[in-house]
Amino acid sequence: MTYQLFYWPQIQGRGEFVRLALEAAGASYRDVAREDGVPAMMAVMRDPALAHRPFAPPFLRHEGLIVAQTANILLYLGPSLGLAPKDKGGRLFAHQLQLTIADLVDEAHDTHHPIDVSLYYEDQKPEATRRAKAFREDRIPKYLGYFEGVLAANPAGPQHLVGEGLTCADLSLFQVVEGLRYAFPKAMARLEPSWLHLIALRNRVAALPRVADYLASERRIPFNEGGIFRRYEALDG
Amino acid sequence: MTYQLFYWPQIQGRGEFVRLALEAAGASYRDVAREDGVPAMMAVMRDPALAHRPFAPPFLRHEGLIVAQTANILLYLGPSLGLAPKDKGGRLFAHQLQLTIADLVDEAHDTHHPIDVSLYYEDQKPEATRRAKAFREDRIPKYLGYFEGVLAANPAGPQHLVGEGLTCADLSLFQVVEGLRYAFPKAMARLEPSWLHLIALRNRVAALPRVADYLASERRIPFNEGGIFRRYEALDG
Repeated sequence: MTYQLFYWPQIQGRGEFVRLALEAAGASYRDVAREDGVPAMMAVMRDPALAHRPFAPPFLRHEGLIVAQTANILLYLGPSLGLAPKDKGGRLFAHQLQLTIADLVDEAHDTHHPIDVSLYYEDQKPEATRRAKAFREDRIPKYLGYFEGVLAANPAGPQHLVGEGLTCADLSLFQVVEGLRYAFPKAMARLEPSWLHLIALRNRVAALPRVADYLASERRIPFNEGGIFRRYEALDG
Repeated sequence: MTYQLFYWPQIQGRGEFVRLALEAAGASYRDVAREDGVPAMMAVMRDPALAHRPFAPPFLRHEGLIVAQTANILLYLGPSLGLAPKDKGGRLFAHQLQLTIADLVDEAHDTHHPIDVSLYYEDQKPEATRRAKAFREDRIPKYLGYFEGVLAANPAGPQHLVGEGLTCADLSLFQVVEGLRYAFPKAMARLEPSWLHLIALRNRVAALPRVADYLASERRIPFNEGGIFRRYEALDG
Protein backbone atom coordinates (compact mmCIF):
# COMPACT_ATOMS: atom_id res chain seq x y z
CA MET A 1 0.00 0.00 0.00
CA THR A 2 1.23 3.47 -0.91
CA TYR A 3 2.77 5.45 1.95
CA GLN A 4 1.37 8.91 2.57
CA LEU A 5 3.94 11.39 3.84
CA PHE A 6 2.74 14.67 5.34
CA TYR A 7 5.27 17.49 5.55
CA TRP A 8 5.69 21.15 4.65
CA PRO A 9 5.87 21.35 0.86
CA GLN A 10 8.45 24.11 0.45
CA ILE A 11 11.37 22.85 2.51
CA GLN A 12 13.51 19.77 2.98
CA GLY A 13 13.38 20.09 6.76
CA ARG A 14 12.84 17.03 8.90
CA GLY A 15 10.63 15.46 6.25
CA GLU A 16 13.65 15.03 4.00
CA PHE A 17 15.00 12.21 6.17
CA VAL A 18 11.79 10.31 5.44
CA ARG A 19 11.74 11.24 1.74
CA LEU A 20 15.30 9.95 1.36
CA ALA A 21 14.42 6.58 2.91
CA LEU A 22 11.33 6.16 0.71
CA GLU A 23 13.26 7.21 -2.39
CA ALA A 24 16.31 5.02 -1.67
CA ALA A 25 14.01 2.02 -1.28
CA GLY A 26 12.01 2.80 -4.41
CA ALA A 27 8.84 2.82 -2.30
CA SER A 28 5.53 4.04 -3.63
CA TYR A 29 4.52 7.18 -1.71
CA ARG A 30 2.53 10.36 -1.96
CA ASP A 31 3.95 13.63 -0.60
CA VAL A 32 0.50 14.81 0.37
CA ALA A 33 0.98 18.51 1.11
CA ARG A 34 3.00 18.95 -2.09
CA GLU A 35 0.27 17.30 -4.15
CA ASP A 36 -2.90 18.43 -2.34
CA GLY A 37 -1.76 21.50 -0.38
CA VAL A 38 -1.09 22.31 3.25
CA PRO A 39 -4.79 22.44 4.24
CA ALA A 40 -5.05 18.73 3.38
CA MET A 41 -2.21 18.07 5.85
CA MET A 42 -3.65 20.28 8.57
CA ALA A 43 -7.07 18.64 8.25
CA VAL A 44 -5.52 15.26 9.10
CA MET A 45 -3.31 16.61 11.88
CA ARG A 46 -6.06 18.61 13.58
CA ASP A 47 -8.85 16.05 13.28
CA PRO A 48 -10.36 16.13 16.77
CA ALA A 49 -11.30 12.46 16.44
CA LEU A 50 -7.65 11.47 15.95
CA ALA A 51 -6.32 9.61 19.00
CA HIS A 52 -2.71 9.14 17.84
CA ARG A 53 -2.17 12.76 16.94
CA PRO A 54 1.14 14.30 15.85
CA PHE A 55 2.68 17.22 17.69
CA ALA A 56 4.04 18.51 14.37
CA PRO A 57 4.87 17.34 10.83
CA PRO A 58 6.37 15.15 9.49
CA PHE A 59 3.96 12.28 9.92
CA LEU A 60 3.16 9.21 7.89
CA ARG A 61 -0.14 7.50 7.18
CA HIS A 62 0.01 3.83 6.30
CA GLU A 63 -2.34 0.91 6.78
CA GLY A 64 -4.56 2.78 9.22
CA LEU A 65 -1.69 4.06 11.37
CA ILE A 66 -0.55 7.64 11.82
CA VAL A 67 3.11 7.77 12.86
CA ALA A 68 4.91 11.01 13.78
CA GLN A 69 8.39 12.08 14.93
CA THR A 70 11.04 11.64 12.23
CA ALA A 71 13.08 8.96 14.00
CA ASN A 72 9.91 7.06 14.91
CA ILE A 73 8.73 7.13 11.28
CA LEU A 74 12.08 5.68 10.22
CA LEU A 75 11.87 3.07 12.99
CA TYR A 76 8.53 2.04 11.49
CA LEU A 77 9.66 2.16 7.87
CA GLY A 78 13.14 0.65 8.20
CA PRO A 79 12.27 -3.05 8.29
CA SER A 80 9.65 -2.82 5.50
CA LEU A 81 11.98 -0.81 3.26
CA GLY A 82 14.94 -3.13 3.84
CA LEU A 83 16.78 -0.28 5.56
CA ALA A 84 17.10 -1.69 9.10
CA PRO A 85 19.52 -4.22 10.60
CA LYS A 86 18.02 -7.67 11.08
CA ASP A 87 19.28 -8.27 14.63
CA LYS A 88 17.82 -6.65 17.73
CA GLY A 89 21.10 -5.09 18.89
CA GLY A 90 21.72 -3.64 15.46
CA ARG A 91 18.23 -2.17 15.27
CA LEU A 92 18.56 -0.53 18.67
CA PHE A 93 21.94 0.90 17.69
CA ALA A 94 20.64 2.19 14.36
CA HIS A 95 17.80 3.93 16.18
CA GLN A 96 20.23 5.32 18.75
CA LEU A 97 22.24 6.85 15.91
CA GLN A 98 19.06 8.19 14.34
CA LEU A 99 18.23 9.95 17.62
CA THR A 100 21.74 11.36 17.83
CA ILE A 101 21.33 12.71 14.30
CA ALA A 102 18.03 14.27 15.44
CA ASP A 103 19.88 16.02 18.27
CA LEU A 104 22.44 17.38 15.82
CA VAL A 105 19.63 18.58 13.53
CA ASP A 106 17.97 20.38 16.46
CA GLU A 107 21.23 22.14 17.25
CA ALA A 108 21.73 23.09 13.59
CA HIS A 109 18.26 24.63 13.64
CA ASP A 110 19.00 26.58 16.78
CA THR A 111 22.02 28.28 15.20
CA HIS A 112 19.59 30.57 13.39
CA HIS A 113 16.88 30.47 16.09
CA PRO A 114 18.69 30.44 19.44
CA ILE A 115 16.11 32.54 21.29
CA ASP A 116 12.60 32.18 19.90
CA VAL A 117 11.24 29.96 17.11
CA SER A 118 8.34 32.35 16.60
CA LEU A 119 10.64 35.25 15.64
CA TYR A 120 12.70 35.74 12.48
CA TYR A 121 16.42 35.07 12.30
CA GLU A 122 16.92 38.80 11.83
CA ASP A 123 15.38 39.39 15.27
CA GLN A 124 18.00 37.23 16.99
CA LYS A 125 21.04 37.74 14.79
CA PRO A 126 23.68 38.66 17.41
CA GLU A 127 22.69 35.63 19.51
CA ALA A 128 22.64 33.45 16.39
CA THR A 129 26.15 34.57 15.48
CA ARG A 130 27.40 33.56 18.91
CA ARG A 131 25.58 30.25 18.95
CA ALA A 132 26.72 29.38 15.41
CA LYS A 133 30.35 29.93 16.41
CA ALA A 134 30.02 27.38 19.24
CA PHE A 135 28.21 25.03 16.89
CA ARG A 136 30.92 25.24 14.22
CA GLU A 137 33.85 25.04 16.60
CA ASP A 138 32.62 22.55 19.21
CA ARG A 139 29.43 20.77 18.25
CA ILE A 140 29.99 19.87 14.57
CA PRO A 141 33.42 18.35 15.36
CA LYS A 142 32.00 16.50 18.37
CA TYR A 143 29.05 15.00 16.49
CA LEU A 144 30.74 14.23 13.18
CA GLY A 145 33.86 12.98 14.95
CA TYR A 146 31.57 10.62 16.84
CA PHE A 147 30.02 9.28 13.63
CA GLU A 148 33.48 8.90 12.08
CA GLY A 149 34.41 6.81 15.13
CA VAL A 150 31.27 4.69 14.80
CA LEU A 151 32.12 3.95 11.16
CA ALA A 152 35.72 3.08 12.07
CA ALA A 153 34.52 0.77 14.88
CA ASN A 154 31.92 -1.12 12.82
CA PRO A 155 33.05 -4.77 12.95
CA ALA A 156 31.55 -5.27 9.47
CA GLY A 157 33.70 -2.45 8.07
CA PRO A 158 33.43 1.33 7.67
CA GLN A 159 31.10 1.20 4.65
CA HIS A 160 28.02 1.56 6.87
CA LEU A 161 27.18 2.81 10.35
CA VAL A 162 25.60 -0.46 11.48
CA GLY A 163 26.36 -3.92 10.17
CA GLU A 164 26.99 -4.61 6.51
CA GLY A 165 23.91 -3.10 4.90
CA LEU A 166 22.50 0.33 4.15
CA THR A 167 20.20 1.71 6.88
CA CYS A 168 18.10 4.83 7.35
CA ALA A 169 20.89 6.14 9.60
CA ASP A 170 23.35 6.08 6.69
CA LEU A 171 20.91 8.01 4.51
CA SER A 172 20.24 10.52 7.28
CA LEU A 173 23.93 11.06 7.88
CA PHE A 174 24.34 11.80 4.15
CA GLN A 175 21.60 14.43 4.50
CA VAL A 176 23.32 15.96 7.53
CA VAL A 177 26.58 16.35 5.60
CA GLU A 178 24.71 17.92 2.68
CA GLY A 179 22.89 20.30 5.01
CA LEU A 180 26.00 21.32 6.92
CA ARG A 181 27.86 21.88 3.64
CA TYR A 182 25.03 24.14 2.50
CA ALA A 183 24.81 26.11 5.75
CA PHE A 184 28.47 26.24 6.76
CA PRO A 185 30.55 25.84 3.57
CA LYS A 186 33.69 27.45 4.99
CA ALA A 187 33.63 25.52 8.25
CA MET A 188 32.93 22.22 6.50
CA ALA A 189 35.70 22.73 3.93
CA ARG A 190 38.10 23.17 6.84
CA LEU A 191 36.80 20.27 8.91
CA GLU A 192 36.03 17.55 6.37
CA PRO A 193 39.58 16.20 5.96
CA SER A 194 39.22 14.74 9.49
CA TRP A 195 36.36 12.47 8.49
CA LEU A 196 37.52 10.05 5.81
CA HIS A 197 34.97 7.31 6.47
CA LEU A 198 32.12 9.76 6.85
CA ILE A 199 32.80 11.54 3.56
CA ALA A 200 33.27 8.20 1.80
CA LEU A 201 29.85 7.15 3.12
CA ARG A 202 28.36 10.45 1.93
CA ASN A 203 29.79 9.78 -1.54
CA ARG A 204 28.53 6.21 -1.67
CA VAL A 205 25.02 7.27 -0.70
CA ALA A 206 25.01 10.07 -3.29
CA ALA A 207 25.97 7.53 -5.95
CA LEU A 208 23.23 5.00 -5.18
CA PRO A 209 21.20 4.96 -8.41
CA ARG A 210 17.83 5.70 -6.80
CA VAL A 211 19.30 8.41 -4.57
CA ALA A 212 21.16 9.98 -7.51
CA ASP A 213 17.93 9.96 -9.56
CA TYR A 214 16.06 11.58 -6.70
CA LEU A 215 18.67 14.27 -6.08
CA ALA A 216 18.59 15.21 -9.78
CA SER A 217 14.78 15.29 -9.88
CA GLU A 218 12.30 18.05 -9.12
CA ARG A 219 11.16 16.01 -6.15
CA ARG A 220 14.32 17.14 -4.31
CA ILE A 221 13.48 20.59 -3.00
CA PRO A 222 16.59 22.81 -3.05
CA PHE A 223 18.00 23.91 0.31
CA ASN A 224 16.59 27.30 1.23
CA GLU A 225 16.31 29.74 4.12
CA GLY A 226 12.96 28.36 5.31
CA GLY A 227 14.45 25.01 6.31
CA ILE A 228 16.70 23.70 9.04
CA PHE A 229 19.99 24.21 7.24
CA ARG A 230 20.23 27.86 6.20
CA ARG A 231 23.04 29.74 4.55
CA TYR A 232 23.61 33.03 6.33
CA GLU A 233 27.00 34.65 5.73
CA ALA A 234 27.25 35.81 9.36
CA LEU A 235 26.89 32.29 10.74
CA ASP A 236 29.68 30.61 8.78
CA GLY A 237 33.39 31.10 9.23
CA MET B 1 19.56 -10.16 34.98
CA THR B 2 20.23 -6.89 36.77
CA TYR B 3 20.14 -3.78 34.58
CA GLN B 4 23.16 -1.51 34.71
CA LEU B 5 22.34 2.17 34.25
CA PHE B 6 25.16 4.60 33.50
CA TYR B 7 24.48 8.28 34.15
CA TRP B 8 25.94 11.28 35.93
CA PRO B 9 25.63 10.62 39.67
CA GLN B 10 24.82 14.13 40.91
CA ILE B 11 21.82 15.10 38.80
CA GLN B 12 18.44 13.77 37.76
CA GLY B 13 18.98 14.89 34.16
CA ARG B 14 18.00 12.60 31.32
CA GLY B 15 18.90 9.54 33.36
CA GLU B 16 15.94 10.20 35.64
CA PHE B 17 13.48 9.11 32.95
CA VAL B 18 15.18 5.70 32.98
CA ARG B 19 15.47 5.55 36.77
CA LEU B 20 11.73 6.23 37.08
CA ALA B 21 10.83 3.39 34.71
CA LEU B 22 13.11 0.92 36.52
CA GLU B 23 11.79 2.03 39.93
CA ALA B 24 8.12 2.00 38.90
CA ALA B 25 8.55 -1.57 37.64
CA GLY B 26 10.45 -2.72 40.73
CA ALA B 27 13.31 -3.83 38.48
CA SER B 28 16.68 -4.86 39.82
CA TYR B 29 19.29 -2.35 38.65
CA ARG B 30 22.61 -0.80 39.51
CA ASP B 31 23.18 2.94 39.09
CA VAL B 32 26.81 2.36 38.20
CA ALA B 33 28.36 5.83 38.40
CA ARG B 34 26.64 6.46 41.74
CA GLU B 35 27.98 3.20 43.15
CA ASP B 36 31.38 2.93 41.46
CA GLY B 37 32.13 6.50 40.37
CA VAL B 38 32.22 8.39 37.09
CA PRO B 39 35.52 6.82 35.92
CA ALA B 40 33.76 3.43 35.85
CA MET B 41 31.17 4.95 33.49
CA MET B 42 33.72 6.68 31.29
CA ALA B 43 35.76 3.47 30.98
CA VAL B 44 32.75 1.72 29.43
CA MET B 45 31.77 4.64 27.22
CA ARG B 46 35.26 5.27 25.87
CA ASP B 47 36.28 1.66 25.36
CA PRO B 48 37.85 1.77 21.89
CA ALA B 49 36.73 -1.82 21.27
CA LEU B 50 33.08 -0.86 21.76
CA ALA B 51 31.19 -0.97 18.45
CA HIS B 52 27.79 0.24 19.70
CA ARG B 53 29.15 3.27 21.48
CA PRO B 54 27.04 5.98 23.14
CA PHE B 55 27.37 9.63 22.15
CA ALA B 56 26.65 10.59 25.77
CA PRO B 57 25.09 9.21 28.97
CA PRO B 58 22.60 7.87 29.85
CA PHE B 59 23.19 4.37 28.58
CA LEU B 60 22.15 0.95 29.75
CA ARG B 61 24.04 -2.35 29.80
CA HIS B 62 21.95 -5.49 29.79
CA GLU B 63 22.48 -8.99 28.46
CA GLY B 64 25.50 -8.02 26.40
CA LEU B 65 23.86 -4.96 24.82
CA ILE B 66 24.77 -1.33 25.33
CA VAL B 67 21.78 0.93 24.59
CA ALA B 68 21.99 4.74 24.61
CA GLN B 69 19.65 7.69 23.99
CA THR B 70 16.97 8.04 26.68
CA ALA B 71 13.97 7.32 24.46
CA ASN B 72 15.75 4.34 22.90
CA ILE B 73 16.54 2.92 26.34
CA LEU B 74 12.87 3.20 27.26
CA LEU B 75 11.89 1.62 23.93
CA TYR B 76 14.11 -1.32 24.91
CA LEU B 77 12.95 -1.52 28.53
CA GLY B 78 9.24 -0.87 28.08
CA PRO B 79 8.06 -4.35 27.03
CA SER B 80 10.22 -6.17 29.61
CA LEU B 81 9.13 -3.86 32.43
CA GLY B 82 5.44 -4.10 31.51
CA LEU B 83 5.46 -0.40 30.64
CA ALA B 84 4.68 -0.53 26.92
CA PRO B 85 1.42 -0.99 25.02
CA LYS B 86 0.95 -4.49 23.62
CA ASP B 87 -0.19 -3.47 20.12
CA LYS B 88 2.11 -2.14 17.41
CA GLY B 89 0.18 1.10 16.90
CA GLY B 90 0.18 1.80 20.61
CA ARG B 91 3.91 1.14 20.90
CA LEU B 92 4.71 3.48 18.04
CA PHE B 93 2.49 6.17 19.54
CA ALA B 94 4.04 5.77 22.99
CA HIS B 95 7.50 6.15 21.45
CA GLN B 96 6.31 9.17 19.46
CA LEU B 97 5.19 10.78 22.73
CA GLN B 98 8.49 9.87 24.34
CA LEU B 99 10.33 11.67 21.54
CA THR B 100 8.08 14.71 21.91
CA ILE B 101 8.89 14.74 25.62
CA ALA B 102 12.59 14.59 24.67
CA ASP B 103 12.11 17.66 22.47
CA LEU B 104 10.47 19.51 25.35
CA VAL B 105 13.32 18.50 27.66
CA ASP B 106 15.86 19.82 25.16
CA GLU B 107 14.04 23.13 25.04
CA ALA B 108 13.86 23.30 28.85
CA HIS B 109 17.63 22.79 28.93
CA ASP B 110 18.22 25.52 26.40
CA THR B 111 16.41 28.10 28.55
CA HIS B 112 19.55 28.29 30.69
CA HIS B 113 21.98 27.45 27.87
CA PRO B 114 20.66 29.18 24.74
CA ILE B 115 24.08 30.00 23.28
CA ASP B 116 26.79 27.55 24.29
CA VAL B 117 26.62 24.37 26.37
CA SER B 118 30.29 24.70 27.25
CA LEU B 119 29.76 28.05 29.02
CA TYR B 120 28.04 28.75 32.34
CA TYR B 121 24.51 30.09 32.61
CA GLU B 122 25.98 33.29 34.00
CA ASP B 123 27.83 33.80 30.70
CA GLN B 124 24.58 33.79 28.69
CA LYS B 125 22.12 35.26 31.16
CA PRO B 126 20.51 38.01 29.02
CA GLU B 127 19.94 35.51 26.21
CA ALA B 128 18.62 32.95 28.69
CA THR B 129 16.16 35.47 30.08
CA ARG B 130 14.82 36.11 26.59
CA ARG B 131 14.65 32.46 25.64
CA ALA B 132 12.98 31.48 28.92
CA LYS B 133 10.24 34.06 28.34
CA ALA B 134 9.39 32.48 24.97
CA PHE B 135 9.57 29.02 26.55
CA ARG B 136 7.19 29.96 29.38
CA GLU B 137 4.74 31.89 27.22
CA ASP B 138 4.68 29.84 24.01
CA ARG B 139 6.40 26.51 24.30
CA ILE B 140 5.21 25.16 27.68
CA PRO B 141 1.56 25.88 26.79
CA LYS B 142 2.02 24.35 23.33
CA TYR B 143 3.64 21.13 24.58
CA LEU B 144 1.58 20.57 27.72
CA GLY B 145 -1.61 21.60 25.92
CA TYR B 146 -0.75 18.92 23.37
CA PHE B 147 -0.35 16.24 26.05
CA GLU B 148 -3.59 17.36 27.69
CA GLY B 149 -5.27 16.86 24.30
CA VAL B 150 -3.71 13.41 23.90
CA LEU B 151 -5.07 12.36 27.30
CA ALA B 152 -8.51 13.72 26.45
CA ALA B 153 -8.50 11.88 23.09
CA ASN B 154 -7.40 8.50 24.45
CA PRO B 155 -10.25 6.11 23.53
CA ALA B 156 -9.46 4.10 26.67
CA GLY B 157 -9.93 7.18 28.87
CA PRO B 158 -7.77 10.05 30.15
CA GLN B 159 -6.05 8.02 32.87
CA HIS B 160 -3.10 7.26 30.59
CA LEU B 161 -1.48 8.67 27.47
CA VAL B 162 -1.76 5.44 25.49
CA GLY B 163 -4.29 2.65 25.98
CA GLU B 164 -5.44 1.56 29.39
CA GLY B 165 -2.14 0.80 31.11
CA LEU B 166 0.80 2.73 32.56
CA THR B 167 3.67 3.33 30.10
CA CYS B 168 7.10 4.93 30.24
CA ALA B 169 5.55 7.98 28.56
CA ASP B 170 3.21 8.51 31.55
CA LEU B 171 6.15 8.30 33.95
CA SER B 172 8.21 10.68 31.83
CA LEU B 173 5.39 13.18 31.63
CA PHE B 174 5.16 13.11 35.44
CA GLN B 175 8.87 13.94 35.54
CA VAL B 176 8.41 16.80 33.10
CA VAL B 177 5.70 18.35 35.28
CA GLU B 178 7.92 17.97 38.36
CA GLY B 179 10.85 19.54 36.55
CA LEU B 180 8.86 22.44 35.17
CA ARG B 181 7.34 23.08 38.59
CA TYR B 182 10.84 23.20 40.05
CA ALA B 183 12.26 25.48 37.36
CA PHE B 184 9.28 27.72 36.66
CA PRO B 185 7.09 27.71 39.80
CA LYS B 186 5.34 30.99 39.04
CA ALA B 187 4.60 30.18 35.42
CA MET B 188 3.38 26.68 36.27
CA ALA B 189 1.11 27.91 39.06
CA ARG B 190 -0.51 30.21 36.51
CA LEU B 191 -0.76 27.63 33.71
CA GLU B 192 -1.68 24.40 35.47
CA PRO B 193 -5.44 25.03 35.79
CA SER B 194 -5.66 24.50 32.00
CA TRP B 195 -4.45 20.92 32.22
CA LEU B 196 -6.88 18.88 34.31
CA HIS B 197 -6.09 15.47 32.83
CA LEU B 198 -2.36 16.10 32.86
CA ILE B 199 -2.24 17.14 36.52
CA ALA B 200 -4.48 14.20 37.46
CA LEU B 201 -2.02 11.89 35.70
CA ARG B 202 0.87 13.54 37.55
CA ASN B 203 -0.92 12.91 40.84
CA ARG B 204 -1.70 9.28 40.02
CA VAL B 205 1.92 8.58 39.09
CA ALA B 206 3.19 10.24 42.27
CA ALA B 207 0.85 8.02 44.32
CA LEU B 208 1.96 4.71 42.76
CA PRO B 209 3.45 2.84 45.75
CA ARG B 210 6.82 2.09 44.13
CA VAL B 211 7.12 5.62 42.74
CA ALA B 212 6.14 7.17 46.09
CA ASP B 213 8.74 4.99 47.83
CA TYR B 214 11.37 6.04 45.33
CA LEU B 215 10.57 9.75 45.55
CA ALA B 216 10.88 9.60 49.36
CA SER B 217 14.16 7.67 49.22
CA GLU B 218 17.75 8.83 48.97
CA ARG B 219 17.88 7.27 45.52
CA ARG B 220 15.90 10.27 44.23
CA ILE B 221 18.48 13.00 43.74
CA PRO B 222 16.97 16.42 44.53
CA PHE B 223 16.56 18.85 41.64
CA ASN B 224 19.58 21.13 41.47
CA GLU B 225 21.28 23.69 39.25
CA GLY B 226 23.50 21.11 37.55
CA GLY B 227 20.58 19.38 35.87
CA ILE B 228 18.17 20.11 33.05
CA PHE B 229 15.49 21.80 35.14
CA ARG B 230 17.11 24.67 37.05
CA ARG B 231 15.56 27.27 39.28
CA TYR B 232 16.91 30.68 38.39
CA GLU B 233 14.83 33.62 39.59
CA ALA B 234 15.44 35.58 36.39
CA LEU B 235 14.03 32.83 34.17
CA ASP B 236 10.64 32.42 35.86
CA GLY B 237 7.77 34.87 35.82
